[in-house]
Amino acid sequence: MTDFDFLTDVVDSSKVDYGEGPREEHSADWASELIGAGVTPDAVVTPTSTEDVSRVLEACDSRGVPVTPYAAGTALEGHVVPVERGVSLDTTEMDSVVDVRPDDFQVDVQPGVIGTDVDDAVERHGLFYPPLPSSGGISTIGGMIATDAGGMQTVKYGKIGDWVVGLECVLADGSVVRCGGRAEKSSSGYNLKDMVVGSEGTLAVVTEATLRLKGIPDEIRGARALFPDIDSAADAVSDAVRSEVDVAKIELIDDVAARMANEYLGTDLPDTPMVFLEFHANHGVEREVEFAEAVFRQHDVDEFKTASRERMEDLWEIRSELGFAVRSYDPSLHPVQAGDVAVPISRYPEMVKEIKRLGDEYDVLVPVFGHAGDGNVHYAPMADPDDQDQYQRAVEVYERAVERALDLGGTATAEHGIGRGKRHYLEREHGAEAVDVMRRIKDALDPNGTLNPGKVLPDED
Amino acid sequence: MTDFDFLTDVVDSSKVDYGEGPREEHSADWASELIGAGVTPDAVVTPTSTEDVSRVLEACDSRGVPVTPYAAGTALEGHVVPVERGVSLDTTEMDSVVDVRPDDFQVDVQPGVIGTDVDDAVERHGLFYPPLPSSGGISTIGGMIATDAGGMQTVKYGKIGDWVVGLECVLADGSVVRCGGRAEKSSSGYNLKDMVVGSEGTLAVVTEATLRLKGIPDEIRGARALFPDIDSAADAVSDAVRSEVDVAKIELIDDVAARMANEYLGTDLPDTPMVFLEFHANHGVEREVEFAEAVFRQHDVDEFKTASRERMEDLWEIRSELGFAVRSYDPSLHPVQAGDVAVPISRYPEMVKEIKRLGDEYDVLVPVFGHAGDGNVHYAPMADPDDQDQYQRAVEVYERAVERALDLGGTATAEHGIGRGKRHYLEREHGAEAVDVMRRIKDALDPNGTLNPGKVLPDED
Repeated sequence: MTDFDFLTDVVDSSKVDYGEGPREEHSADWASELIGAGVTPDAVVTPTSTEDVSRVLEACDSRGVPVTPYAAGTALEGHVVPVERGVSLDTTEMDSVVDVRPDDFQVDVQPGVIGTDVDDAVERHGLFYPPLPSSGGISTIGGMIATDAGGMQTVKYGKIGDWVVGLECVLADGSVVRCGGRAEKSSSGYNLKDMVVGSEGTLAVVTEATLRLKGIPDEIRGARALFPDIDSAADAVSDAVRSEVDVAKIELIDDVAARMANEYLGTDLPDTPMVFLEFHANHGVEREVEFAEAVFRQHDVDEFKTASRERMEDLWEIRSELGFAVRSYDPSLHPVQAGDVAVPISRYPEMVKEIKRLGDEYDVLVPVFGHAGDGNVHYAPMADPDDQDQYQRAVEVYERAVERALDLGGTATAEHGIGRGKRHYLEREHGAEAVDVMRRIKDALDPNGTLNPGKVLPDED
Repeated sequence: MTDFDFLTDVVDSSKVDYGEGPREEHSADWASELIGAGVTPDAVVTPTSTEDVSRVLEACDSRGVPVTPYAAGTALEGHVVPVERGVSLDTTEMDSVVDVRPDDFQVDVQPGVIGTDVDDAVERHGLFYPPLPSSGGISTIGGMIATDAGGMQTVKYGKIGDWVVGLECVLADGSVVRCGGRAEKSSSGYNLKDMVVGSEGTLAVVTEATLRLKGIPDEIRGARALFPDIDSAADAVSDAVRSEVDVAKIELIDDVAARMANEYLGTDLPDTPMVFLEFHANHGVEREVEFAEAVFRQHDVDEFKTASRERMEDLWEIRSELGFAVRSYDPSLHPVQAGDVAVPISRYPEMVKEIKRLGDEYDVLVPVFGHAGDGNVHYAPMADPDDQDQYQRAVEVYERAVERALDLGGTATAEHGIGRGKRHYLEREHGAEAVDVMRRIKDALDPNGTLNPGKVLPDED
């Protein structure tokens, strides 16, 4: 049994917690009710500086103590839940906006800053941070970088990684590394920044990030479109993207998800598939709205209504709450996992249809929604955990949908990441040779396997 | 002395050349007159398939034979020039456009495809490949990926790496690895794609790339602006970017570079600093042109003229030829190196001023031009190689400008890459810890140091 007193030798004792409550808390996250909780760490350390992180990692690494980074706990594949004991490294206290440089459209933040706090910090300069995920109001920037998160506006602006210019991070051995920089464009050396982005705390712990910002558009419009069936809705979205309608958000919500939203939020969405849209421009935004409507008319849209600013905010509130709505719909029905496939846009209608078909085939309730413009489908096969047969059928729907996405040239996870839950798809998606390269990189940067063990890479035989 | 007969055991003998002519040819590139030629390889191998590349690499790696990838030879830092003997691996025969998928905005190409040939292959679908560098008509896609090249349209669309969705590549040991895929969005595993992009053939040889395409804009306008002095021009560009004028190209050309263009091309550019612009939109392009002009008026612009389509093509032809114009200006004057710094956009005017000031201080002719909207300055201090004092002064101008760029939070190379010529800046820019990480990655993927030795990473002490 390791003695964990060494922790208070390297950081102030106020930052180290051996209490059962905090330790239990750090053994679970949002995904735990879906894929199970993890083991309870021996200690929770809450660093307040890069030096703290460096000292803790160096001390743990030299003693063979695993370190699992933790932040808001909103990950959906068990990324932050320890599979080995050791230290849970909670970065939520490192939550300062360090420097805003509006003239360069850049802001430096610590990893524990909540997504929307970045927007709040730069709004008075007329700027915003475009790629925030739907959980932007509760998730941390560090967590978003760890998963290379995407969001509703990824269709126009790209993912988190596209809006990170530079990083400061700490390797397992405690060395502090700067990746990228402040120049918007560089071909200098290997791209370490994008290697760390999306590596889910298995290669390094991010201690500061330089984010790229964008001017708030002068014109913003919202719209809601209703379709007679899911096929028309999916075809309409695919066609809009292929026609390059300039949308900032284009979200599909099927009738099942809409029903769940109504139950959970007391809203009155109609019982039919629908698409929510948002348009950003500095001028001429109406042209794009009209263009989108014209494309949708080709696909049997029943109703296409622009939304007032207030009504639009309501729509996005509904969309952001969908994950909660799905979980709260029926106390006896749980989503078996949070589906997150993406396929090339021309295959998007086929992918959506297949998921609905699988639901029918297996007689499983499957709400479908997501960032349609990216070819990204979220789906959540529902089952009663006490009904083993139903549960197994729901799991099969989940897995067969991933298989189909991969067959269509897609990905098992568009934005949630691999974590613990999707490791078995890694080789299927990328091939054994690519996984071997990932493993070589992991071994090169973290030879003792200290950082977030049991995540991303499948166990070796 | 190694016997190179093993090469014809692994690939057809028609693909192996031991002749002095081809070997000499592959010891030099565009940069050779600036930074010197390399050593002459023992053999030139011209693979025509991924399997060829794999077999040659495996055979060389197991025998300790260095392999230096070669393509069009247009790199500017000696990337493709061997510093050790061995094999020059010439990918120019792998020049097929493999598959166009217009509905997904994607095309698969082999590495030897010339940049503008991609545009030619997809134009009938109304598509184009936005990030091509100025040398797009002569450089290969493989070379562009190797350097993460940028171009005139990077200010709007991003760099080559942003437009690569997936790669097939071969490691030093011959294993074939697929990085990325066809989904436009994925958080699955480590980002190998962006690790290979920009690694200059030191980690892997790219054998196929899936590129992202874009619809040709409905409206394209060009403009030329003349300024009384370089400070106004630089201030105007910086202000335009910070005001988020939606430009597709915004290029600064100083009076010295304009003079050189006139000499070389017989054009009649006025003897004053100028900015060339291009605007892309599907509607409302005139609004952006007016906006740009309004911003420029704040900075003493002498003339702002929109250009006809034809006249605009002439402007870009001039801009693309500037590199040649600089080299041909005066037979006794050579650029000592091709400057390629970039700084955060708010520091761009300061950077430009500093380069001009250094030219004055050292009494050296320094044409200045480049992708101003990215904060990217190309500059070419000129000297007579036979005049050692002048040559040394020009080198100092070159180096002090890089130092200043780094002091301003910038990069030593925005788009050309490190190659052989800028290795000594790598640690200065990124820190010893980051360079150590790069070295660990190199060792993990190419433990025998087979691929492109002597590039990117500085020699170890």
